[in-house]
Amino acid sequence: MGTRLWFDEEYAAGHGDTTEGEPVTRLGIAIEKTLFRGKSEYQEVMVVESKGWGRVLTLDGCFMVTERDEYVYHEMLAHPAMSAHGSAKNVLIIGGGDGGTVREVLKHDPDHVDLVEIDKMVIDASREFLPSVAGKLSDPRVSINTVDGLKWVADRKNTYDVILVDSCDPVGPGIGLFRAPFYKDCAAALKKGGIFVNQSESPHQHPDIIKGIYAELRKAYKHQGMYLAHMPTYPTGCWSFAFNSNDITVKEGCERAAKGTKPIETKYYNRELHAAAFVLPNAFRKQVEA
Amino acid sequence: MGTRLWFDEEYAAGHGDTTEGEPVTRLGIAIEKTLFRGKSEYQEVMVVESKGWGRVLTLDGCFMVTERDEYVYHEMLAHPAMSAHGSAKNVLIIGGGDGGTVREVLKHDPDHVDLVEIDKMVIDASREFLPSVAGKLSDPRVSINTVDGLKWVADRKNTYDVILVDSCDPVGPGIGLFRAPFYKDCAAALKKGGIFVNQSESPHQHPDIIKGIYAELRKAYKHQGMYLAHMPTYPTGCWSFAFNSNDITVKEGCERAAKGTKPIETKYYNRELHAAAFVLPNAFRKQVEA
Repeated sequence: MGTRLWFDEEYAAGHGDTTEGEPVTRLGIAIEKTLFRGKSEYQEVMVVESKGWGRVLTLDGCFMVTERDEYVYHEMLAHPAMSAHGSAKNVLIIGGGDGGTVREVLKHDPDHVDLVEIDKMVIDASREFLPSVAGKLSDPRVSINTVDGLKWVADRKNTYDVILVDSCDPVGPGIGLFRAPFYKDCAAALKKGGIFVNQSESPHQHPDIIKGIYAELRKAYKHQGMYLAHMPTYPTGCWSFAFNSNDITVKEGCERAAKGTKPIETKYYNRELHAAAFVLPNAFRKQVEA
Repeated sequence: MGTRLWFDEEYAAGHGDTTEGEPVTRLGIAIEKTLFRGKSEYQEVMVVESKGWGRVLTLDGCFMVTERDEYVYHEMLAHPAMSAHGSAKNVLIIGGGDGGTVREVLKHDPDHVDLVEIDKMVIDASREFLPSVAGKLSDPRVSINTVDGLKWVADRKNTYDVILVDSCDPVGPGIGLFRAPFYKDCAAALKKGGIFVNQSESPHQHPDIIKGIYAELRKAYKHQGMYLAHMPTYPTGCWSFAFNSNDITVKEGCERAAKGTKPIETKYYNRELHAAAFVLPNAFRKQVEA
């Protein structure tokens, strides 16, 4: 079978920061070759051709996108907020330079999508090597802004129906995307009835980080709920998202999604799954409760 | 930090048999030391002390039990069937020599549990090295039978309220546990109102195997449903189970579980999660449909 090359993402024992302490777990993907490797102002960006997972985008050694399972994460970041809103016209995506979240949001026919991705290298590499993910970045309804998301939302009031945060882990320069000042700016940038969803790490791997995220979210939003998706190439295969609003409860969002009539073509999300994804195992409930 | 030793489970591209083809994915756990390593008549049995996952039982190089996440698998194998039945007195577990499924079943106060595990070495190693998992194997209500599960059920008619199959993957000598003749013998071994649940692999990793499993199940049971759990150390972190009965639909089982009043101490399963776990992503629905 010849020599096998592995790309391994290693992570620590959990509970705290993913970069803290000695690695105790690794997820490896066998690779054919490296297609792109660059060092941007912010991070190391790589695209590899894998065996069995298609092309794979990594940032600082962490799996971000594989062609095989990216649909899970991107669908579950975008559709719960868009379906719970029901008529989102103006959408902001912070991060998400690979374009997968844009692709899913556009299925709901918004008038305009602002993508605010700080790292142009992520956008360029995705456009070149991951066309099935990044293809919709050239849709005329999409504005691409390579600026800092923290600064972008500080200037916007009463502008968006839905804000989605498609970020890396809460370490290094991205830490501000997990703090109350940013969450409050996003709340102010939402119109009445607006919904804010951010990726909120793995409940199996990051219980303490998650408690911190939800404590910060409670400072900015009245209503919260964690929901889950089965995402194989993220640590533990279990990934969570935080649904937030000052106007709509999780239950109201689920009811509106269940009544939706517009057909959306998806591989993972469906209207029944929307509510079911919010039902948490006992151990995870404790991470979200005040 | 010193030298790091890794125990990696490697698996193939998916779709087919887990042992087929070149490995393209691996999940690794850093280990401290090997506590037990033996070769039984059936398989290689190992127990290692890991970093971050507690003690870990492997069979033929596959993760079976880690002290950190075994609760997910064992709770989700046992409680949906036991709660949907509501008054199971006589329970059969095929496989499950580590004792985790026995531990969960006993929370429902059955009169008797037959454990039928072909490999005595699994039982002995678990008793010695995994007491938090195997401790309930010595409960007076539990009979341990180290014989072939296929032969055991062939002799029993109208005997059990619940049958749980806690098996390895459908390869090698265990293949019979995934075929219609065995499923039919189990159906005949169930009393009126009985429920049969078996582990049914990962929908992200084994779509073709799963189609085969459910096609065989349909030959023996009128009612089926797949449900999911977030199980980090099994391939892709997403694991499925098949709920089967000739008398009770999935919906009836969910309703009965939701109405249950007996408190059961669990870390993962709860009465709301029972129904939610049956709501499948679109791509997985196709694996179960006839």
